[in-house]
Amino acid sequence: MFKPLIALDWGTTRARAFLISEDGRVLQRRLADRGIQSVAAGGYPAAFEALAGELRRAAPDAAIVLAGMVGSRNGWVEAPYVACPASPGDIAAAGITVDLAADTRATILPGLSCDDGAFDVMRGEETLIVGLGLDDGLACLPGTHSKWAEIRGGRITRFASFMTGEIYGLLRNQSILARLAEEPVADDAGRGAERGRAAARGPAGLLNAAFAARTEVLAGRMRPGEVGPFLSSLLVAQEIAGAEALFGRAHRVHLVADGALAESYGAALAAAGLETTIATPEAAFVAGVRRLASGLSR
Amino acid sequence: MFKPLIALDWGTTRARAFLISEDGRVLQRRLADRGIQSVAAGGYPAAFEALAGELRRAAPDAAIVLAGMVGSRNGWVEAPYVACPASPGDIAAAGITVDLAADTRATILPGLSCDDGAFDVMRGEETLIVGLGLDDGLACLPGTHSKWAEIRGGRITRFASFMTGEIYGLLRNQSILARLAEEPVADDAGRGAERGRAAARGPAGLLNAAFAARTEVLAGRMRPGEVGPFLSSLLVAQEIAGAEALFGRAHRVHLVADGALAESYGAALAAAGLETTIATPEAAFVAGVRRLASGLSR
Repeated sequence: MFKPLIALDWGTTRARAFLISEDGRVLQRRLADRGIQSVAAGGYPAAFEALAGELRRAAPDAAIVLAGMVGSRNGWVEAPYVACPASPGDIAAAGITVDLAADTRATILPGLSCDDGAFDVMRGEETLIVGLGLDDGLACLPGTHSKWAEIRGGRITRFASFMTGEIYGLLRNQSILARLAEEPVADDAGRGAERGRAAARGPAGLLNAAFAARTEVLAGRMRPGEVGPFLSSLLVAQEIAGAEALFGRAHRVHLVADGALAESYGAALAAAGLETTIATPEAAFVAGVRRLASGLSR
Repeated sequence: MFKPLIALDWGTTRARAFLISEDGRVLQRRLADRGIQSVAAGGYPAAFEALAGELRRAAPDAAIVLAGMVGSRNGWVEAPYVACPASPGDIAAAGITVDLAADTRATILPGLSCDDGAFDVMRGEETLIVGLGLDDGLACLPGTHSKWAEIRGGRITRFASFMTGEIYGLLRNQSILARLAEEPVADDAGRGAERGRAAARGPAGLLNAAFAARTEVLAGRMRPGEVGPFLSSLLVAQEIAGAEALFGRAHRVHLVADGALAESYGAALAAAGLETTIATPEAAFVAGVRRLASGLSR
């Protein structure tokens, strides 16, 4: 059912390429700042060769699957969004075949759209969500634009985006708060995070709560190193509360993250009283692209 | 009780100077990009002369009152915050006297602090609030960092800041949404504002609702000219909801604004079912500084 795979998670600014064995081990991986915004029209076969040519020569018979923004209007070929609810089979069936060379084809996976209230879209995250292998559950994929997705009966039924990472960057680095903020030292990270969570429980919302970082520092009641952790934890707590309002209270959240995001979201979910499972983005991508590739070949 | 006044609203980036007659008419006004950030230590008498020297020569006997960031730690002389609740008399009594020249003195008005839950401060807005002449009420002063203040028994009892204007600027001009936004044409402003108010009523909060501007434009369901009005009205609606959560439901809001802010906040308050009175910042400042100056001389 599974065969060797060359799989690319090909986003706007970066690309990750994996050579995956029949039994699901990552044999080789490449990471490059060669996102679609650096690829000119007609340049995709050459960009693929630069990214994954070695993997291709190491496994000439491997199937090739491309996920992410490479399938967007600004990518190689547009693979139209599949509307939720969508099963892994629905996603696989909407893959678009492209020619890399005379005898070499690749499949570009589609993204998902959701029209439940607000219209929303994703490209790339659907593969990680499929990789969680859930029949029912709630997945959280933190990032610049975090995604939360609900899975029911093995299908992704709906999802929503949150601008948490981007707004954190704007507030931390470009707002009036940036002038007061310093790198955390000593126990700044823990103290700031705790205060951010408390501020998120206040009645007046984000526009008011974020400003407290300024007034508290000016009053000598918050250390400059607490500002970043305060803002991060305030925003993440607001995201979690928003997701709960949309999707209902979940017993458990399936978090797809590593490094600092895994830590900060893990702590925030625990503080919100939610059980958490954690998968790394690589593990979720590899598992997801294998499931979708097996659907392609059936 | 009243005598001629030279009054400066001297902020971080700009300064406004007024010559005010005994009966409260503005006889002359000056506006300059000579905020305190452009004045070096020791440079305040010269900066005053450049701003208001002509007014001084036109009315040599006028009292001189300076309000705003000029009284901050980074200004001329720090006039420590007066803690709420504060009456106009409390504010006037905390004014600091400085020497402009050998025989010329000026009074620097203090700001206010509020320690009701989150710590907050203001400098300059207290003068405008005093100018409303309220015994009881709720004032809204929109801006980069909007202020809402509660007045009870003639005293400013508490207030809160909202980063509405600053976060609007970051989202409109520096976020991923900036790339999609265009100047409003035709009925974009009205449509965008209406949709922003509707989005603010959604369950998932600002981090989610703002992202809809991106997905709706990409889907061809929102015009690029609607993005700015959508964001503005979403944020203002969140500010109003936050203020209501803090201060309770008010029958009427006393708005201090002119131009585009008066329009957008007026429409948002009306949409929220609140009666609104409007005073311009100049009228509120002139009335407030006269009340405070009369307190100084008593």
